[in-house]
Amino acid sequence: MSHGIIKPRRGVYIVSSGAVAGHEEEAGPIGGCFDAVDTYEDRFGTDTWEKAESEMQRLAVGFALSKAGVDTSDVGAMLAGDLLNQCVGSNYGLTDYRIPYMGLYGACSTASEGIMLGTLLCSSSVDRAVAVTSSHYCSAERQFRFPLEYGGQRPPTAQWTVTGSGAFLLSADKEDIKILDTDYVPSVVEVLPGYVTDKGITDVNNMGAAMAPAAADTLYRYFSLGRDPSEFDLIITGDLGSEGSGILCEMLSEEGVDITERHVDCGCIIYNSDEADKHAGGSGCGCSAVVMAAHILRNIREGILSDVLFVGTGALMSPLVLNQGSSIPGIGHLVRIRGERIVK
Amino acid sequence: MSHGIIKPRRGVYIVSSGAVAGHEEEAGPIGGCFDAVDTYEDRFGTDTWEKAESEMQRLAVGFALSKAGVDTSDVGAMLAGDLLNQCVGSNYGLTDYRIPYMGLYGACSTASEGIMLGTLLCSSSVDRAVAVTSSHYCSAERQFRFPLEYGGQRPPTAQWTVTGSGAFLLSADKEDIKILDTDYVPSVVEVLPGYVTDKGITDVNNMGAAMAPAAADTLYRYFSLGRDPSEFDLIITGDLGSEGSGILCEMLSEEGVDITERHVDCGCIIYNSDEADKHAGGSGCGCSAVVMAAHILRNIREGILSDVLFVGTGALMSPLVLNQGSSIPGIGHLVRIRGERIVK
Repeated sequence: MSHGIIKPRRGVYIVSSGAVAGHEEEAGPIGGCFDAVDTYEDRFGTDTWEKAESEMQRLAVGFALSKAGVDTSDVGAMLAGDLLNQCVGSNYGLTDYRIPYMGLYGACSTASEGIMLGTLLCSSSVDRAVAVTSSHYCSAERQFRFPLEYGGQRPPTAQWTVTGSGAFLLSADKEDIKILDTDYVPSVVEVLPGYVTDKGITDVNNMGAAMAPAAADTLYRYFSLGRDPSEFDLIITGDLGSEGSGILCEMLSEEGVDITERHVDCGCIIYNSDEADKHAGGSGCGCSAVVMAAHILRNIREGILSDVLFVGTGALMSPLVLNQGSSIPGIGHLVRIRGERIVK
Repeated sequence: MSHGIIKPRRGVYIVSSGAVAGHEEEAGPIGGCFDAVDTYEDRFGTDTWEKAESEMQRLAVGFALSKAGVDTSDVGAMLAGDLLNQCVGSNYGLTDYRIPYMGLYGACSTASEGIMLGTLLCSSSVDRAVAVTSSHYCSAERQFRFPLEYGGQRPPTAQWTVTGSGAFLLSADKEDIKILDTDYVPSVVEVLPGYVTDKGITDVNNMGAAMAPAAADTLYRYFSLGRDPSEFDLIITGDLGSEGSGILCEMLSEEGVDITERHVDCGCIIYNSDEADKHAGGSGCGCSAVVMAAHILRNIREGILSDVLFVGTGALMSPLVLNQGSSIPGIGHLVRIRGERIVK
C-alpha cells in the first residue's frame, strides 16, 4: 500500500510566511496579525476584483521573501492556485516574479496542497519553494453564486469567502533559518494527501457539508496509521465553518476518534462569532492560507504551539456541472507541522 | 541562482502510458496508436461533454495501470488537471480510483507539469505517481469561445482542441520495469519548469502566438545551461500549432539557437495537414498528452528515439479577464526523456 503517511527525505522548514487581507478580516480576532490590509474597499489599488486578488498574491509572496531575506532567483518553484477560473488570481499576480511556476487547483485546499507539494519538492532536488493562494469575496461570489449587485439572501449554512492571500516560503537549507529572530521554526514533518470524496451534496450554500467527509476520511486514515489526537496541540481544519466542523467531529466520533478537545477550524476563528453576515464562518483559499500564515505559524514560531495538524479542505465545486445534476466532491490534505528550536 | 535544470535524485521511469481519443483524432496520422477511441460522436457513453472528458481520464489511467500490472493501492499520487473550470474533467473522472489526488492547473502545459511534478515526487518519497490530463473539443469551445451550436467561423490561426486524454505512470522502482516486454523504458532525466510569460497577445483564436514566447524562453534558458539542440533526436513542443511553431523557431533563431531540424509540434502531427477545419493544428491539454502517451513514448520504448526534449506549453487564457482587457500569459515546462535499455 503506497497511500501511507509521506515523510520528507530531509527536514523542510516554513522559513517565513506573508499574509494580506481585506477590511472585514481585519475586523476579526486575528486582524492585527496581517502584513498588509486594504482598510477601505478591498480593491488593493486596482480596478477589478480579480486584479485585487492578483495584487494580494503579489504582496503576500513579497512579504514572505523579504522576511527571509531571500531573492526571487533563490526560489526554485512557485506553487500557486486560487478559486477563479483558470486560476487568474495566481497567473496574473505572480508573472513579474520570474520564479518557475507550477499551477495548482485544489479549491480551498490549495494552501495545504501547496505546502505539501513544496515540502516534497524541497526534500527532493528543488532549492526552496513558495506556496501561495488567495480568494476574494467579491470575485468568488460573482463566479460561484451571484454577483453582489443581485443582493441574494444567504442561508445560515453559507460561508463567507475570505478576502486574503497567504504565502509560505519553504526551504530545506539550514542556513536559511539561522537569520530568523525567533526561537522556533515551523518544520513540515509529515504529509498525507487526500482522496477526492463525493457524498452527494448539491447545495452551493453548504460547502462545509461537502468538505467534511473528505477531512474525516483523511484524518481517520492518519489516526489509523499509528497516530493519536492527543499527540497534537491543535488539529486545525480549513475551511469547514461551524456546519462542516460539527459534521467532521460527528463522523470521526462514529469511527471512535475524538478530536473535539483539540479541533478548531480556520473558518470559525477568522471572523467574530457574533457577526451575523458571516453565518457558518469563513471559507475560500485565502481563509486557511491567512489563518495559517498570520496566526498559527506565528504561534509555532513563538513556542506557544509545538505540534499542529493542518487539514486543508476543498470543495471542488463547479457551477456548470452542478447545473448538469452533479454533486460537489471534496478533498482534504493533511500537513503535520512541528516547531523546531533554532540552534544558531 | 535556483532556477537551473532540476535532476531527479534517483532515476524515474515512465513505466507505462494510456491514451484515449475521439474519432477526429483516430482519423489522423497516429490514429492507430490509441488504447481506446470513440468512433461515433465522442460522448464515451455519457450524456454531457464534461462527463465524456471525465470518462476519457478514467479510461486513460486504467490503461496505464493495467499495462504495468500496478494496482491503485500501489500508486502514491495522482497529478491531474484539465482545461475546464474547476478542473471537473479530472475531479469527477478520477474519484473512484481512491488514489491520493493533487489537482493541477497549467492549461495545455498540464501533461508536462504532471510528468515533471510526478518525477520529482517519485524521486523523493512518493511510491509511484500517475500524471493525467484531458481536453474535449466540445466542452472547450463552449467554455472558452462559443457553443458549437453558434456555428462561429474560425480564422486560420485558430487551433482545434483535441478530444483525448493521456495518462503516464511514473515510478522509481526498478522492479516495475522488469515486467515490461519492451527493450527500452523512457526515463525522465532532467526537468526545467517555466516562467509565466506575457507578451500581450489578446486574440483567443491565436493561442500559438501566446504560448510561443514561453516555449522560447524555457528552451533558450535550457540551451544556455550547457545543452545543445544537436544532442536530441527530437525537440517536441505541445501545442503551438503551425502558427506558434513558426514564431518559436524565429524567436530562438534571433537568439542564435537553431532547432528547426529537430523540432516538431504535437499540434502539427495529430491531424492530417490537408484537413481544412483544423487550421493551425491541434491544441488542448489532451493534444500533447495523447501524442506523447501513444506515439512518442512508444518510439522511445522501441528504440527509434533515444533522447527527446518535450516542452509542454499552456496559454493561461481566461475569458473573464480577457473581457476586462487583460492579455493571455503563456507557460512552457521542459522534460527531457531518455530511453534506457531494460536489463532483466
